[in-house]
Amino acid sequence: MTRPVTRELAEWTVSLRGDDIPEPVRAEGVRSFVNWLGCAVGGSAHETIDRGLDAVRPFTGTARAQVIGRNERLDELHAALINGISSHVLDYDDTHLKTIIHPAGPIASAVLAVAEPRGISGQDVLTALVVGMEVECRIGNSVYPDHYDRGWHITGTAGVFGAAAAVGRLLDLDARQMTWAYSLAATQSSGLREMFGTMTKSFHPGRAAQNGAMSAFLAKANYDSSEQGIEAPRGWANVASTKQDYDEILGDLGKTWEAGLNSYKPYACGIVIHPTIDGCQQLRAKLGDRIASIASVGLRTHPLVLELTGKKAPATGLEGKFSVYHAAATALLYGDGSPTAFTDEMVRDPRVTALRDRVSAQSDNAVHEDEVYISVRFEDGSTTELHVEHAIGSISRPLSDEQIVTKFRNQSIGILGEAAADELIRTAWQLEDHDDIAAITRLSAPA
Amino acid sequence: MTRPVTRELAEWTVSLRGDDIPEPVRAEGVRSFVNWLGCAVGGSAHETIDRGLDAVRPFTGTARAQVIGRNERLDELHAALINGISSHVLDYDDTHLKTIIHPAGPIASAVLAVAEPRGISGQDVLTALVVGMEVECRIGNSVYPDHYDRGWHITGTAGVFGAAAAVGRLLDLDARQMTWAYSLAATQSSGLREMFGTMTKSFHPGRAAQNGAMSAFLAKANYDSSEQGIEAPRGWANVASTKQDYDEILGDLGKTWEAGLNSYKPYACGIVIHPTIDGCQQLRAKLGDRIASIASVGLRTHPLVLELTGKKAPATGLEGKFSVYHAAATALLYGDGSPTAFTDEMVRDPRVTALRDRVSAQSDNAVHEDEVYISVRFEDGSTTELHVEHAIGSISRPLSDEQIVTKFRNQSIGILGEAAADELIRTAWQLEDHDDIAAITRLSAPA
Repeated sequence: MTRPVTRELAEWTVSLRGDDIPEPVRAEGVRSFVNWLGCAVGGSAHETIDRGLDAVRPFTGTARAQVIGRNERLDELHAALINGISSHVLDYDDTHLKTIIHPAGPIASAVLAVAEPRGISGQDVLTALVVGMEVECRIGNSVYPDHYDRGWHITGTAGVFGAAAAVGRLLDLDARQMTWAYSLAATQSSGLREMFGTMTKSFHPGRAAQNGAMSAFLAKANYDSSEQGIEAPRGWANVASTKQDYDEILGDLGKTWEAGLNSYKPYACGIVIHPTIDGCQQLRAKLGDRIASIASVGLRTHPLVLELTGKKAPATGLEGKFSVYHAAATALLYGDGSPTAFTDEMVRDPRVTALRDRVSAQSDNAVHEDEVYISVRFEDGSTTELHVEHAIGSISRPLSDEQIVTKFRNQSIGILGEAAADELIRTAWQLEDHDDIAAITRLSAPA
Repeated sequence: MTRPVTRELAEWTVSLRGDDIPEPVRAEGVRSFVNWLGCAVGGSAHETIDRGLDAVRPFTGTARAQVIGRNERLDELHAALINGISSHVLDYDDTHLKTIIHPAGPIASAVLAVAEPRGISGQDVLTALVVGMEVECRIGNSVYPDHYDRGWHITGTAGVFGAAAAVGRLLDLDARQMTWAYSLAATQSSGLREMFGTMTKSFHPGRAAQNGAMSAFLAKANYDSSEQGIEAPRGWANVASTKQDYDEILGDLGKTWEAGLNSYKPYACGIVIHPTIDGCQQLRAKLGDRIASIASVGLRTHPLVLELTGKKAPATGLEGKFSVYHAAATALLYGDGSPTAFTDEMVRDPRVTALRDRVSAQSDNAVHEDEVYISVRFEDGSTTELHVEHAIGSISRPLSDEQIVTKFRNQSIGILGEAAADELIRTAWQLEDHDDIAAITRLSAPA
């Protein structure tokens, strides 16, 4: 007899009180929120958002929720979609390193959009966000890595459960309704890794936010569903993965917290490239003018680097985010790993393409995901080497609050203006102090 | 080098002219449309629709598309969702027997909703419907049975491609946009068989219609995506199935037509039960009062019957649709296989539950899907047997146009009234004569 995973998870989801979440986990939740908000502002000017808005604008209902970083307002479900896309389109958001889930996007995008017209407090928003991320990451753990290896984009496929959990709390679902919401999420879980490098990658956290929210709204209306959508013989875990470890979902639930393990990206690209960028930036500082006489660069990396980011000749900025060669070249030449290193112009820059073609990479199972060995050969035959043991932004070298603020400012000042950006940052850090989340949403649009 | 399946399919989708479809296939398309419309009217009064509408009403945009059988109007995407649910909730719609796809629901629900506010002609609606069903069934063939066996509800997972195709035609996508639309559909493909017996089963064709339409609207706005979402190493077919036969998609495309193989359900339940109901109705006619002295009923059936419809003690009407025991009992006692045989009341009827418990079933690989052997033992020890070689509604014994009309009338008179139901039926058969599809949609709501 299988344990009733869906129902037990639902019971926990609706019965937890905000006070039950340990203070360090709530604090990490605030960091997740601030980092996510900065990314959503920063991504909002990307043409992906213009096109997405063109597509959905004719269908939006009453404009009750803010599109972050823009002047548009949409109904809650469409705002969740667009904000989820904005927060992920630059690949600059956050990472649960055990699963490569980008946790906040699917959850915060749904929570903020649903909370705003309901005047929900910052404390309840934070609780919903943390619970949602916890559910998402635990469900991810239960099927990782098999599920991801098969080709599912786990941020979308696990994110929809987290969004259902978070919105389910905001709507005060009872345990049975929450069980249905999880099954409605299970049956909408989707997103393929094949979409990496296109606008459809960031569609995944957006759609997960929207679909998870819809699951909760349907369940609230007593639209019924399976009571074991996760664990049934033909439930989600069995259909979408060869591994199913339900202890990862229910074990020590409420005692240990995956949501407290979030990390924040220092670079705007696939996380597995980060050690390489970190190392190339260090080499640039060390080598100075000798960069111009590099004959070749050799990388020895974790195998996922080539599997995920092996594009030799990216044609667009979005493709550049999945080219370790491009990332190494921009870091060596310009010291840049921010969004400006991954524009359509930068992937066509002649200096970048010339150096990119001299970069090679080799997989090594002995190299960890946050590690890289770099060897450089110069035209005169001399060489230099560098080892990054733990990349910046990894769990061993987390971004400080100050670094999160700097990242937020760099992304948002061009969109909101300096004073407004700083006010938004200050207000976002005070998330738990606001009686009404509108205190934040009204500052997230340009004046 | 894999053939560019997604792109070749897209090129065919956008370049086909209505005249290229053979007349018998167009005629089957009209039968599919009429049958679908009757089911959408018939299902519209189910409480599943009330609850679905309660959930989505707050989010609907401009009310430009008719909810069939109801007085509500919604935006196109939400109308597609609700009409897709209505047309499938009674499990009374249609079947592509090679794949057990219910073809019209995901396609017609999207087409009608998008066509209405655009004043599109009946001929173009029919062409879009046929193309959509063709794409859906061919994609289904390419992964069936492995994909279905794994637990995917293929009406949802393949339906989303068909809806994207059909709406892509209505929006005049170019070939590249249609390629993106297919990849956007691929990354949204979802729906689990675990949901059978709940309101979430019929959510699948509805959501497939909505998601497929959204894929086309996004592509129209140049929201880009993979150009090989179906066949890439981590594309849909590889991720969601162990079988990938791309000849089933591209072979003889435009020459042989899966859309011409649609069949229409005579009974309102899982298709694999149909031979049993057919046989039990025949036995009832033959046995008369002796039905009351039945001691036991033995069924020898195709293995899918027990796998899909083995619920021993269904608690709701929707669960009853997945109980071969319940279906046999209602057919023997009341001669009924229509929606009234699968209500919450009927599954609690003491006569039905008493007889249901005396029905047993046995799987036999030698029995075809449209076949059944029934043996009845009476209290006095005597026995009788019956063999159904091809159930009514199967490809060998298709419903006639008159039977489709009778089915439509039985479902719709109680909702629209007799005169209005007959006018809608007459107008629907003349699909190709209407310059504006509104001629049909305005008759599909109660006066």
